[in-house]
Amino acid sequence: MFSNVGHMTTTSGRIRMSPESRREQLLELGTQLLSTRTLDEISIEVLAEEAGISRGLLYHYFGNKQEFHLAVVRRAVEQLVAITAPRDIEDPIEQLAVSIGAYLDYVVENFTGYVSLVRAASGGNEELRAIYDDGRRALTDRIFEVTGPAGLEALGLEDSPTMRLLVNGWSAMLEVVVIDWVTDPRGIAREDLLGRLARALPGIVLA
Amino acid sequence: MFSNVGHMTTTSGRIRMSPESRREQLLELGTQLLSTRTLDEISIEVLAEEAGISRGLLYHYFGNKQEFHLAVVRRAVEQLVAITAPRDIEDPIEQLAVSIGAYLDYVVENFTGYVSLVRAASGGNEELRAIYDDGRRALTDRIFEVTGPAGLEALGLEDSPTMRLLVNGWSAMLEVVVIDWVTDPRGIAREDLLGRLARALPGIVLA
Repeated sequence: MFSNVGHMTTTSGRIRMSPESRREQLLELGTQLLSTRTLDEISIEVLAEEAGISRGLLYHYFGNKQEFHLAVVRRAVEQLVAITAPRDIEDPIEQLAVSIGAYLDYVVENFTGYVSLVRAASGGNEELRAIYDDGRRALTDRIFEVTGPAGLEALGLEDSPTMRLLVNGWSAMLEVVVIDWVTDPRGIAREDLLGRLARALPGIVLA
Repeated sequence: MFSNVGHMTTTSGRIRMSPESRREQLLELGTQLLSTRTLDEISIEVLAEEAGISRGLLYHYFGNKQEFHLAVVRRAVEQLVAITAPRDIEDPIEQLAVSIGAYLDYVVENFTGYVSLVRAASGGNEELRAIYDDGRRALTDRIFEVTGPAGLEALGLEDSPTMRLLVNGWSAMLEVVVIDWVTDPRGIAREDLLGRLARALPGIVLA
Protein backbone atom coordinates (compact mmCIF):
# COMPACT_ATOMS: atom_id res chain seq x y z
CA MET A 1 0.00 0.00 0.00
CA PHE A 2 2.80 2.37 0.91
CA SER A 3 5.26 1.02 -1.63
CA ASN A 4 5.26 4.19 -3.70
CA VAL A 5 6.33 6.12 -0.71
CA GLY A 6 8.98 3.54 0.03
CA HIS A 7 10.38 4.05 -3.45
CA MET A 8 10.95 7.65 -2.68
CA THR A 9 13.90 6.64 -0.57
CA THR A 10 15.72 4.77 -3.26
CA THR A 11 18.59 6.51 -4.88
CA SER A 12 18.01 4.54 -8.03
CA GLY A 13 16.22 7.50 -9.48
CA ARG A 14 13.26 5.39 -10.49
CA ILE A 15 10.98 8.06 -9.20
CA ARG A 16 12.15 11.62 -9.36
CA MET A 17 10.03 14.01 -7.40
CA SER A 18 10.30 17.63 -6.46
CA PRO A 19 10.68 18.25 -2.73
CA GLU A 20 7.16 19.65 -2.79
CA SER A 21 5.68 16.50 -4.32
CA ARG A 22 7.55 14.40 -1.79
CA ARG A 23 6.21 16.45 1.07
CA GLU A 24 2.72 16.14 -0.40
CA GLN A 25 3.03 12.39 -0.64
CA LEU A 26 4.34 12.11 2.90
CA LEU A 27 1.47 14.24 4.11
CA GLU A 28 -0.92 11.96 2.27
CA LEU A 29 0.57 9.04 4.15
CA GLY A 30 0.27 11.02 7.38
CA THR A 31 -3.47 11.42 6.90
CA GLN A 32 -3.77 7.73 5.99
CA LEU A 33 -2.15 6.91 9.31
CA LEU A 34 -4.82 9.05 10.94
CA SER A 35 -7.49 6.58 9.86
CA THR A 36 -6.56 4.08 12.56
CA ARG A 37 -4.51 6.18 14.96
CA THR A 38 -5.19 9.21 17.08
CA LEU A 39 -3.34 12.41 16.32
CA ASP A 40 -1.22 11.86 19.42
CA GLU A 41 -0.21 8.45 18.13
CA ILE A 42 1.21 9.89 14.93
CA SER A 43 4.71 11.20 15.28
CA ILE A 44 7.48 11.91 12.84
CA GLU A 45 9.03 8.64 14.11
CA VAL A 46 5.91 6.67 13.17
CA LEU A 47 5.74 8.32 9.77
CA ALA A 48 9.45 7.62 9.19
CA GLU A 49 8.90 3.96 9.97
CA GLU A 50 5.81 3.65 7.75
CA ALA A 51 7.39 5.54 4.86
CA GLY A 52 10.71 3.77 5.28
CA ILE A 53 12.70 6.98 5.17
CA SER A 54 14.89 8.73 7.66
CA ARG A 55 13.58 10.81 10.50
CA GLY A 56 16.08 13.48 9.59
CA LEU A 57 14.50 13.92 6.18
CA LEU A 58 11.05 14.17 7.75
CA TYR A 59 12.23 16.78 10.21
CA HIS A 60 13.57 18.60 7.19
CA TYR A 61 10.09 18.55 5.61
CA PHE A 62 7.97 19.18 8.68
CA GLY A 63 10.12 20.93 11.28
CA ASN A 64 8.77 19.46 14.50
CA LYS A 65 5.92 17.33 15.80
CA GLN A 66 3.56 20.27 16.31
CA GLU A 67 4.20 21.56 12.77
CA PHE A 68 3.76 18.05 11.42
CA HIS A 69 0.44 17.69 13.23
CA LEU A 70 -0.74 21.06 11.96
CA ALA A 71 0.17 20.03 8.42
CA VAL A 72 -1.67 16.70 8.78
CA VAL A 73 -4.79 18.36 10.19
CA ARG A 74 -4.69 21.04 7.49
CA ARG A 75 -4.54 18.27 4.90
CA ALA A 76 -7.34 16.28 6.54
CA VAL A 77 -9.54 19.37 6.58
CA GLU A 78 -8.72 20.02 2.90
CA GLN A 79 -9.72 16.44 2.14
CA LEU A 80 -13.00 16.91 3.97
CA VAL A 81 -13.74 20.11 2.08
CA ALA A 82 -12.85 18.39 -1.21
CA ILE A 83 -14.84 15.17 -0.77
CA THR A 84 -17.95 17.08 0.28
CA ALA A 85 -17.77 19.40 -2.72
CA PRO A 86 -21.12 19.83 -4.48
CA ARG A 87 -21.74 17.50 -7.41
CA ASP A 88 -23.94 18.45 -10.31
CA ILE A 89 -27.18 17.74 -8.48
CA GLU A 90 -30.04 20.09 -9.10
CA ASP A 91 -32.15 19.53 -6.00
CA PRO A 92 -30.32 21.39 -3.20
CA ILE A 93 -31.58 19.05 -0.46
CA GLU A 94 -30.44 16.02 -2.43
CA GLN A 95 -27.11 17.79 -3.01
CA LEU A 96 -26.71 18.42 0.73
CA ALA A 97 -27.59 14.81 1.54
CA VAL A 98 -24.93 13.56 -0.90
CA SER A 99 -22.31 15.87 0.62
CA ILE A 100 -23.26 14.83 4.15
CA GLY A 101 -23.03 11.20 3.00
CA ALA A 102 -19.47 11.78 1.78
CA TYR A 103 -18.62 13.38 5.11
CA LEU A 104 -20.21 10.51 7.03
CA ASP A 105 -18.27 7.93 5.00
CA TYR A 106 -15.07 9.81 5.75
CA VAL A 107 -15.84 9.73 9.46
CA VAL A 108 -16.62 5.99 9.30
CA GLU A 109 -13.36 5.25 7.47
CA ASN A 110 -11.21 7.50 9.64
CA PHE A 111 -13.08 7.29 12.90
CA THR A 112 -10.17 7.06 15.36
CA GLY A 113 -8.19 9.85 13.81
CA TYR A 114 -11.19 12.03 13.03
CA VAL A 115 -12.52 11.96 16.57
CA SER A 116 -9.05 12.70 17.95
CA LEU A 117 -8.74 15.58 15.49
CA VAL A 118 -12.10 17.07 16.53
CA ARG A 119 -11.12 16.73 20.18
CA ALA A 120 -7.71 18.27 19.69
CA ALA A 121 -9.27 21.09 17.68
CA SER A 122 -12.00 21.68 20.27
CA GLY A 123 -9.50 21.49 23.10
CA GLY A 124 -6.79 23.86 24.14
CA ASN A 125 -4.66 23.91 20.99
CA GLU A 126 -5.29 27.34 19.44
CA GLU A 127 -3.58 26.64 16.12
CA LEU A 128 -5.40 23.37 15.56
CA ARG A 129 -8.67 25.04 16.43
CA ALA A 130 -8.00 27.85 13.98
CA ILE A 131 -7.44 25.32 11.17
CA TYR A 132 -10.56 23.39 12.09
CA ASP A 133 -12.69 26.53 12.44
CA ASP A 134 -11.46 27.74 9.06
CA GLY A 135 -12.51 24.41 7.57
CA ARG A 136 -15.98 24.61 9.05
CA ARG A 137 -16.30 28.20 7.87
CA ALA A 138 -15.22 27.16 4.36
CA LEU A 139 -18.00 24.56 4.33
CA THR A 140 -20.52 27.07 5.62
CA ASP A 141 -19.45 29.76 3.18
CA ARG A 142 -19.58 27.31 0.29
CA ILE A 143 -23.28 26.74 0.86
CA PHE A 144 -23.88 30.43 0.25
CA GLU A 145 -21.42 30.78 -2.58
CA VAL A 146 -22.04 27.64 -4.61
CA THR A 147 -25.78 27.29 -4.27
CA GLY A 148 -27.54 29.39 -6.90
CA PRO A 149 -30.32 31.85 -6.07
CA ALA A 150 -33.05 29.26 -6.72
CA GLY A 151 -31.27 26.72 -4.53
CA LEU A 152 -30.78 29.23 -1.73
CA GLU A 153 -34.45 30.03 -1.87
CA ALA A 154 -35.33 26.34 -1.75
CA LEU A 155 -33.16 25.98 1.35
CA GLY A 156 -34.79 29.01 2.94
CA LEU A 157 -31.46 30.84 2.92
CA GLU A 158 -30.63 34.44 2.28
CA ASP A 159 -27.14 35.70 2.90
CA SER A 160 -27.29 37.49 6.26
CA PRO A 161 -25.29 37.36 9.51
CA THR A 162 -28.21 35.53 11.17
CA MET A 163 -28.30 32.87 8.47
CA ARG A 164 -24.53 32.35 8.56
CA LEU A 165 -24.69 32.01 12.34
CA LEU A 166 -27.43 29.38 12.06
CA VAL A 167 -25.75 27.49 9.24
CA ASN A 168 -22.61 27.28 11.36
CA GLY A 169 -24.81 25.88 14.16
CA TRP A 170 -26.29 23.33 11.75
CA SER A 171 -22.75 22.32 10.85
CA ALA A 172 -21.94 21.76 14.56
CA MET A 173 -25.11 19.66 14.85
CA LEU A 174 -23.98 17.54 11.91
CA GLU A 175 -20.65 16.80 13.55
CA VAL A 176 -22.17 15.66 16.82
CA VAL A 177 -24.97 13.63 15.22
CA VAL A 178 -22.61 11.91 12.78
CA ILE A 179 -20.11 10.97 15.52
CA ASP A 180 -22.99 9.76 17.75
CA TRP A 181 -24.46 7.73 14.89
CA VAL A 182 -21.17 6.15 13.85
CA THR A 183 -20.57 5.24 17.50
CA ASP A 184 -24.04 3.69 17.76
CA PRO A 185 -26.38 3.70 14.74
CA ARG A 186 -29.35 2.73 17.02
CA GLY A 187 -31.14 1.15 14.10
CA ILE A 188 -31.29 4.37 12.09
CA ALA A 189 -30.61 3.75 8.41
CA ARG A 190 -27.89 5.78 6.70
CA GLU A 191 -30.19 7.23 4.02
CA ASP A 192 -32.83 8.19 6.57
CA LEU A 193 -30.20 9.99 8.63
CA LEU A 194 -28.74 11.82 5.61
CA GLY A 195 -32.19 13.02 4.51
CA ARG A 196 -33.02 14.24 7.99
CA LEU A 197 -29.73 16.08 8.39
CA ALA A 198 -30.10 17.75 4.99
CA ARG A 199 -33.71 18.80 5.63
CA ALA A 200 -32.69 20.06 9.08
CA LEU A 201 -30.96 23.02 7.39
CA PRO A 202 -34.14 24.62 6.02
CA GLY A 203 -35.83 23.31 9.19
CA ILE A 204 -33.50 25.49 11.25
CA VAL A 205 -33.31 28.61 9.12
CA LEU A 206 -37.00 28.75 8.23
CA ALA A 207 -38.06 28.16 11.86
CA MET B 1 -18.50 39.52 48.04
CA PHE B 2 -16.59 36.59 49.50
CA SER B 3 -16.88 37.69 53.12
CA ASN B 4 -19.06 34.76 54.08
CA VAL B 5 -16.45 32.39 52.91
CA GLY B 6 -13.80 34.38 54.75
CA HIS B 7 -15.74 33.98 57.94
CA MET B 8 -15.50 30.26 57.66
CA THR B 9 -11.91 30.51 58.66
CA THR B 10 -12.51 32.30 61.90
CA THR B 11 -12.39 30.24 65.02
CA SER B 12 -14.83 32.59 66.68
CA GLY B 13 -17.58 30.14 65.94
CA ARG B 14 -19.75 32.86 64.47
CA ILE B 15 -20.62 30.50 61.67
CA ARG B 16 -20.67 26.82 62.42
CA MET B 17 -20.92 24.67 59.34
CA SER B 18 -20.71 21.00 58.68
CA PRO B 19 -17.70 19.96 56.58
CA GLU B 20 -20.14 19.22 53.78
CA SER B 21 -21.62 22.72 53.85
CA ARG B 22 -18.14 24.20 53.91
CA ARG B 23 -17.13 22.16 50.91
CA GLU B 24 -20.30 23.25 49.14
CA GLN B 25 -19.59 26.89 49.88
CA LEU B 26 -16.01 26.57 48.67
CA LEU B 27 -17.22 24.91 45.51
CA GLU B 28 -19.66 27.77 45.00
CA LEU B 29 -16.73 30.16 45.25
CA GLY B 30 -14.80 27.97 42.81
CA THR B 31 -17.52 28.34 40.19
CA GLN B 32 -17.69 32.09 40.86
CA LEU B 33 -13.97 32.28 40.10
CA LEU B 34 -14.76 30.53 36.82
CA SER B 35 -16.74 33.56 35.68
CA THR B 36 -13.61 35.59 34.92
CA ARG B 37 -10.91 32.92 34.80
CA THR B 38 -10.27 29.87 32.68
CA LEU B 39 -10.34 26.47 34.30
CA ASP B 40 -6.55 26.34 34.05
CA GLU B 41 -6.30 29.60 35.94
CA ILE B 42 -8.19 28.22 38.92
CA SER B 43 -6.06 26.24 41.29
CA ILE B 44 -6.39 25.26 44.91
CA GLU B 45 -3.87 28.04 45.60
CA VAL B 46 -6.09 30.64 43.94
CA LEU B 47 -9.14 29.37 45.79
CA ALA B 48 -7.22 29.43 49.10
CA GLU B 49 -6.26 33.03 48.51
CA GLU B 50 -9.77 34.11 47.52
CA ALA B 51 -11.41 32.25 50.38
CA GLY B 52 -8.75 33.31 52.87
CA ILE B 53 -8.24 29.81 54.20
CA SER B 54 -5.30 27.47 54.19
CA ARG B 55 -4.30 25.41 51.19
CA GLY B 56 -4.00 22.41 53.49
CA LEU B 57 -7.68 22.61 54.34
CA LEU B 58 -8.58 22.88 50.65
CA TYR B 59 -6.47 19.85 49.79
CA HIS B 60 -8.34 18.09 52.56
CA TYR B 61 -11.65 18.94 50.87
CA PHE B 62 -10.68 18.45 47.24
CA GLY B 63 -7.70 16.09 47.13
CA ASN B 64 -5.75 17.50 44.20
CA LYS B 65 -6.06 19.98 41.35
CA GLN B 66 -7.67 17.49 38.96
CA GLU B 67 -10.25 16.44 41.56
CA PHE B 68 -10.89 20.07 42.35
CA HIS B 69 -11.43 20.88 38.67
CA LEU B 70 -13.77 17.93 38.26
CA ALA B 71 -15.77 19.10 41.29
CA VAL B 72 -15.96 22.66 39.93
CA VAL B 73 -17.08 21.48 36.49
CA ARG B 74 -19.61 19.11 38.03
CA ARG B 75 -21.00 22.01 40.02
CA ALA B 76 -21.06 24.33 36.98
CA VAL B 77 -22.96 21.72 34.99
CA GLU B 78 -25.42 21.28 37.88
CA GLN B 79 -25.93 25.03 37.90
CA LEU B 80 -26.60 25.00 34.17
CA VAL B 81 -29.11 22.19 34.49
CA ALA B 82 -30.79 24.01 37.41
CA ILE B 83 -31.04 27.49 35.88
CA THR B 84 -32.47 26.11 32.64
CA ALA B 85 -35.14 24.08 34.47
CA PRO B 86 -38.60 24.45 32.92
CA ARG B 87 -40.80 27.11 34.51
CA ASP B 88 -44.55 26.86 34.54
CA ILE B 89 -44.98 28.00 30.96
CA GLU B 90 -47.64 26.30 28.92
CA ASP B 91 -46.40 26.95 25.40
CA PRO B 92 -43.48 24.54 24.86
CA ILE B 93 -41.68 26.83 22.39
CA GLU B 94 -41.96 29.75 24.79
CA GLN B 95 -40.71 27.44 27.56
CA LEU B 96 -37.71 26.41 25.47
CA ALA B 97 -36.92 30.03 24.61
CA VAL B 98 -36.96 30.97 28.32
CA SER B 99 -34.63 28.07 29.19
CA ILE B 100 -32.28 28.95 26.33
CA GLY B 101 -32.34 32.57 27.56
CA ALA B 102 -31.23 31.43 31.03
CA TYR B 103 -28.46 29.40 29.43
CA LEU B 104 -27.40 32.33 27.26
CA ASP B 105 -27.29 34.67 30.27
CA TYR B 106 -25.13 32.16 32.11
CA VAL B 107 -22.72 32.05 29.18
CA VAL B 108 -22.60 35.87 29.03
CA GLU B 109 -21.91 36.15 32.77
CA ASN B 110 -19.35 33.36 32.87
CA PHE B 111 -17.90 33.62 29.39
CA THR B 112 -14.21 33.08 30.12
CA GLY B 113 -14.75 30.11 32.37
CA TYR B 114 -17.57 28.62 30.34
CA VAL B 115 -15.62 28.61 27.09
CA SER B 116 -12.59 27.10 28.84
CA LEU B 117 -14.86 24.45 30.35
CA VAL B 118 -16.37 23.54 26.98
CA ARG B 119 -12.89 23.33 25.47
CA ALA B 120 -11.50 21.23 28.29
CA ALA B 121 -14.55 18.96 28.10
CA SER B 122 -14.30 18.65 24.30
CA GLY B 123 -10.56 18.12 24.50
CA GLY B 124 -8.56 15.21 25.73
CA ASN B 125 -9.70 15.02 29.35
CA GLU B 126 -11.92 11.94 29.53
CA GLU B 127 -13.35 12.60 32.99
CA LEU B 128 -14.26 16.20 32.22
CA ARG B 129 -15.86 15.10 28.98
CA ALA B 130 -17.91 12.46 30.78
CA ILE B 131 -19.26 15.08 33.21
CA TYR B 132 -20.05 17.46 30.38
CA ASP B 133 -21.68 14.77 28.23
CA ASP B 134 -23.78 13.66 31.20
CA GLY B 135 -24.93 17.25 31.64
CA ARG B 136 -25.92 17.58 28.00
CA ARG B 137 -27.70 14.26 28.15
CA ALA B 138 -29.57 15.37 31.29
CA LEU B 139 -30.78 18.44 29.39
CA THR B 140 -31.79 16.34 26.39
CA ASP B 141 -33.55 13.73 28.51
CA ARG B 142 -35.38 16.40 30.46
CA ILE B 143 -37.08 17.62 27.30
CA PHE B 144 -38.62 14.17 26.87
CA GLU B 145 -39.40 13.63 30.54
CA VAL B 146 -40.72 17.00 31.61
CA THR B 147 -42.67 18.02 28.53
CA GLY B 148 -46.17 16.53 28.63
CA PRO B 149 -47.67 14.56 25.72
CA ALA B 150 -49.34 17.66 24.25
CA GLY B 151 -46.09 19.61 24.50
CA LEU B 152 -44.09 16.82 22.88
CA GLU B 153 -46.59 16.75 20.04
CA ALA B 154 -46.33 20.52 19.64
CA LEU B 155 -42.54 20.17 19.41
CA GLY B 156 -42.87 17.37 16.89
CA LEU B 157 -41.21 14.95 19.29
CA GLU B 158 -41.89 11.35 20.01
CA ASP B 159 -39.54 9.38 22.20
CA SER B 160 -37.36 7.37 19.83
CA PRO B 161 -33.62 6.84 19.32
CA THR B 162 -33.74 9.01 16.19
CA MET B 163 -35.38 11.88 18.06
CA ARG B 164 -32.94 11.66 20.98
CA LEU B 165 -30.05 11.69 18.51
CA LEU B 166 -31.43 14.79 16.79
CA VAL B 167 -32.25 16.59 20.04
CA ASN B 168 -28.66 16.00 21.16
CA GLY B 169 -27.56 17.54 17.85
CA TRP B 170 -29.85 20.51 18.43
CA SER B 171 -28.22 20.93 21.82
CA ALA B 172 -24.76 20.98 20.20
CA MET B 173 -26.04 23.60 17.73
CA LEU B 174 -27.24 25.74 20.65
CA GLU B 175 -23.82 25.68 22.26
CA VAL B 176 -22.00 26.78 19.14
CA VAL B 177 -24.53 29.44 18.15
CA VAL B 178 -24.66 30.89 21.66
CA ILE B 179 -20.87 31.11 21.96
CA ASP B 180 -20.66 32.61 18.46
CA TRP B 181 -23.38 35.15 19.29
CA VAL B 182 -21.87 36.16 22.63
CA THR B 183 -18.52 36.61 20.88
CA ASP B 184 -20.12 38.74 18.18
CA PRO B 185 -23.88 39.47 18.27
CA ARG B 186 -23.75 40.76 14.64
CA GLY B 187 -26.79 42.92 15.25
CA ILE B 188 -29.03 39.98 16.08
CA ALA B 189 -31.35 40.80 18.98
CA ARG B 190 -31.41 38.44 21.98
CA GLU B 191 -35.15 37.70 21.74
CA ASP B 192 -34.94 37.05 18.01
CA LEU B 193 -32.10 34.59 18.59
CA LEU B 194 -33.90 32.79 21.43
CA GLY B 195 -37.06 32.38 19.37
CA ARG B 196 -35.10 31.04 16.41
CA LEU B 197 -33.16 28.56 18.54
CA ALA B 198 -36.32 27.32 20.23
CA ARG B 199 -38.21 26.91 16.94
CA ALA B 200 -35.17 25.17 15.48
CA LEU B 201 -35.98 22.11 17.58
CA PRO B 202 -39.27 21.26 15.84
CA GLY B 203 -37.60 22.57 12.67
CA ILE B 204 -34.99 19.82 12.96
CA VAL B 205 -37.11 16.93 14.15
CA LEU B 206 -40.07 17.56 11.85
CA ALA B 207 -37.78 18.02 8.83
